[in-house]
Amino acid sequence: MGRHLREIAEILGGKVIGDDRVLITGIDSLEKASQGEISFFLDKRYKDLAKTTKASALLVSEPVDFYGGPQVVVPNPRLAYARAAGIFAPPLPRFPGVSDDARVDESSIIGKDASIYPMVYVGKEAVIGDNVTLFPGTFIGDRVRIGFGTVIYPNVTVLRDCIIGNEVIIHPGCVIGSDGFGFVRDGVENVKIPQLGIVQIDDRVEIGANTTIDRAALGKTLVRKGVKTDNLIQIAHNVEIGENTVIVALTGISGSTRIGRDVVIGGQVGIGDHLKVGDRAMIGSASGVHKSLAEDEVVSGNPTMPHRHWLKTRGLINRLPQLNDRLRSLEERVKKMEKMLK
Amino acid sequence: MGRHLREIAEILGGKVIGDDRVLITGIDSLEKASQGEISFFLDKRYKDLAKTTKASALLVSEPVDFYGGPQVVVPNPRLAYARAAGIFAPPLPRFPGVSDDARVDESSIIGKDASIYPMVYVGKEAVIGDNVTLFPGTFIGDRVRIGFGTVIYPNVTVLRDCIIGNEVIIHPGCVIGSDGFGFVRDGVENVKIPQLGIVQIDDRVEIGANTTIDRAALGKTLVRKGVKTDNLIQIAHNVEIGENTVIVALTGISGSTRIGRDVVIGGQVGIGDHLKVGDRAMIGSASGVHKSLAEDEVVSGNPTMPHRHWLKTRGLINRLPQLNDRLRSLEERVKKMEKMLK
Amino acid sequence: MGRHLREIAEILGGKVIGDDRVLITGIDSLEKASQGEISFFLDKRYKDLAKTTKASALLVSEPVDFYGGPQVVVPNPRLAYARAAGIFAPPLPRFPGVSDDARVDESSIIGKDASIYPMVYVGKEAVIGDNVTLFPGTFIGDRVRIGFGTVIYPNVTVLRDCIIGNEVIIHPGCVIGSDGFGFVRDGVENVKIPQLGIVQIDDRVEIGANTTIDRAALGKTLVRKGVKTDNLIQIAHNVEIGENTVIVALTGISGSTRIGRDVVIGGQVGIGDHLKVGDRAMIGSASGVHKSLAEDEVVSGNPTMPHRHWLKTRGLINRLPQLNDRLRSLEERVKKMEKMLK
Repeated sequence: MGRHLREIAEILGGKVIGDDRVLITGIDSLEKASQGEISFFLDKRYKDLAKTTKASALLVSEPVDFYGGPQVVVPNPRLAYARAAGIFAPPLPRFPGVSDDARVDESSIIGKDASIYPMVYVGKEAVIGDNVTLFPGTFIGDRVRIGFGTVIYPNVTVLRDCIIGNEVIIHPGCVIGSDGFGFVRDGVENVKIPQLGIVQIDDRVEIGANTTIDRAALGKTLVRKGVKTDNLIQIAHNVEIGENTVIVALTGISGSTRIGRDVVIGGQVGIGDHLKVGDRAMIGSASGVHKSLAEDEVVSGNPTMPHRHWLKTRGLINRLPQLNDRLRSLEERVKKMEKMLK
Repeated sequence: MGRHLREIAEILGGKVIGDDRVLITGIDSLEKASQGEISFFLDKRYKDLAKTTKASALLVSEPVDFYGGPQVVVPNPRLAYARAAGIFAPPLPRFPGVSDDARVDESSIIGKDASIYPMVYVGKEAVIGDNVTLFPGTFIGDRVRIGFGTVIYPNVTVLRDCIIGNEVIIHPGCVIGSDGFGFVRDGVENVKIPQLGIVQIDDRVEIGANTTIDRAALGKTLVRKGVKTDNLIQIAHNVEIGENTVIVALTGISGSTRIGRDVVIGGQVGIGDHLKVGDRAMIGSASGVHKSLAEDEVVSGNPTMPHRHWLKTRGLINRLPQLNDRLRSLEERVKKMEKMLK
Repeated sequence: MGRHLREIAEILGGKVIGDDRVLITGIDSLEKASQGEISFFLDKRYKDLAKTTKASALLVSEPVDFYGGPQVVVPNPRLAYARAAGIFAPPLPRFPGVSDDARVDESSIIGKDASIYPMVYVGKEAVIGDNVTLFPGTFIGDRVRIGFGTVIYPNVTVLRDCIIGNEVIIHPGCVIGSDGFGFVRDGVENVKIPQLGIVQIDDRVEIGANTTIDRAALGKTLVRKGVKTDNLIQIAHNVEIGENTVIVALTGISGSTRIGRDVVIGGQVGIGDHLKVGDRAMIGSASGVHKSLAEDEVVSGNPTMPHRHWLKTRGLINRLPQLNDRLRSLEERVKKMEKMLK
């Protein structure tokens, strides 16, 4: 099941230096690659590992002299690694057709070559696109629409009327379209505000495991194309996330906040409600965002501040006891002088 | 499927100014409402939107002169909006009766008009109340008792012996009654403390998606009536949460802590174990609660402090580098003066 | 179904003072124990409760004179409590054999006395050990291997090729083996790095509800034996966690970080990527770990600092407004003196 190095180089758009007929059967790190595998040299810090690797070929950005085997020179070795990994990734296991042990309402439309595993539930008038894969335990609510090539892993819940685009990946345990958290206080009790909107997830989005995305109160919660979220993220009702934005684990985004495109949000970040985060902003992990951010802002901390400022500040938090001591010493010295001057 | 405005006004206890015969078919925001829909004017900042809205009627707290259509004057427009949304909310989709594709132990008792979807599992000697809805993928353990009108969404797990009240809503992916996190160190290993208690959830509680509530070590973890939790919340063993308390996403409450009634807890808050939070306390998002809070306390920060104090403090965290510079400058000036005075 | 006190004492390796023929039918706290139950006196603060308890016997570390009933003297009453609770814990409910309503691929191997509930899915060439219990809604991917005596609670997803050891407990809703969060920026889009590795969970690990553990990019994400995690934890790709380490709820560990053995990690902690945390380190709740920690370090705060230092520091964060006032007052006094000295 291997591929000749030449073939791999062609796929990656790279140039082989050395023997391009080597048969490659897998990919691994410099440290763990064994004979027959290809590896990649991405970072000069790992030069020593590259010297001693058992890999039978190396992806490099420019030829290196400390490795004896054939090298594939590529403009972006990290990207080439991603693509090479794709060559050796096991194919997605797909159930052939619609399982008799799935419960698909007859009013729903199932696309060509859809793979619907046992123990899937599909409600009324749903539309499942061509080549979609629904793993066991997924629940697809009434009137949900799913585009072509989308993969929904086990135990995912997609509630009524939500729209999921093409080639989306939803990892296990996610909840799409749960009610937004909206209540009005009526004297003693919290009265639920019925959440009438939907969640719309656009093409090529990937949602990490056990993430929750609430439906809008009215209108839609919108995750635009190419967004990638990590695991255990909370996206509240009416949030909008711009194209290709990336969000790391355990982050929460409060209601009606609009995140721009190409934004990078670290892990365990909290973002307040009704804010706007500009395109290409970067938010460091564990930040608390209480006000809107402009385009290209790079912030950290709680409250957020420019990241460089945060680097200085966090060092000083650490030194608060010393600051306090210095202040106390100054107070004494000033007092002494004041006495002298009287 | 619409309703005449007069009818809506009656349901909301409001008074119509203008033509009360208009047919209303839905509800939406000022910006997005189209003809035939009702909207609501809650906040003066949205006056411009109210002027140009296409809505065919408006919920208002007092008559406004900048909107031409009929107005429904109500004492609390937000509450009226919640109720009006209820009028237009799609009904809960319910499976008619108990599906043949559910696995319900014959020793369990199923109430009148219960809706049990395919792929539900109900263990031994469980009691499912009248009019309960159990969506696909829910697991109901042995001897669990569920009151009337409760809705349990897909892929929820309720483990043995837990008690769930009337008209409770449990959103998808929740885990109720997992073992509390209790271990004793025995030399090298962590010995599990068997968790013998239960979780009890009282009437009209709503639990957000993928939230986890652990069973008590002994006794019960107790969520009192009217509590509303957002998504991805952790409630540890033996915690008690008072009536109508509201908890925002990604918050964790440690073991044996007792939260009062009508408390508001922001997102990503951490509350230590064995603490007491008084009635009506408010805890800002991302706070770290390390000591008990009195009734009506309003706190923020980590460690928590009075919220007003926090607003001042967090501005100063930001300015720590300047504080440090000012301190250094003072030190130099004092040194200089000390020299002069010698 | 009770046990005589003598029997219990034997199991716990304790010595009875008083009547060892008492029949014990359960265990509860000092406050809630009723006649026929045993309780435990672990903490001197609860002396008053011990005086008035209705428990019919008491576990103590040394004989006490304020309790009238029989006492079982044990070296470690907390450990004894854990074991006594085990005596009275209800047995795990097990489905007899493999349910006809489970979908187990015929290429998979199922061990002796395995209990496979309805609505379980087991893929191709999986190996399920002796005496394993798989609850409804669990998904076991192709080629997954599970050791003997392991319990997997409802709605857990274990994806392809992962390895789970003996006597592991995985609580409901967990996701094991979701793709690690790895993307390369290719001009405009984020290109997915296929995640080719696995997750390996060793013997006697316990994973809390709704926790997510990502598969390695290459190689494996490794959770070593005896590790205990609480609920809603994120463990990223290629992380390694040492033996008997304990992790509290809502904590996230970033990619490739290596945690030592016997480490204690509090709740809502964030640990950066590619770090090393030494054996026996302790990390306070809500800490932000940005650099590696040595063995036995005890840290807290964000950024982390020695825990003692943090206790001083966090008091000062609170007092920043006063510090600022003191600084301003000093500035004025210094200015005044400078004028005088001119």
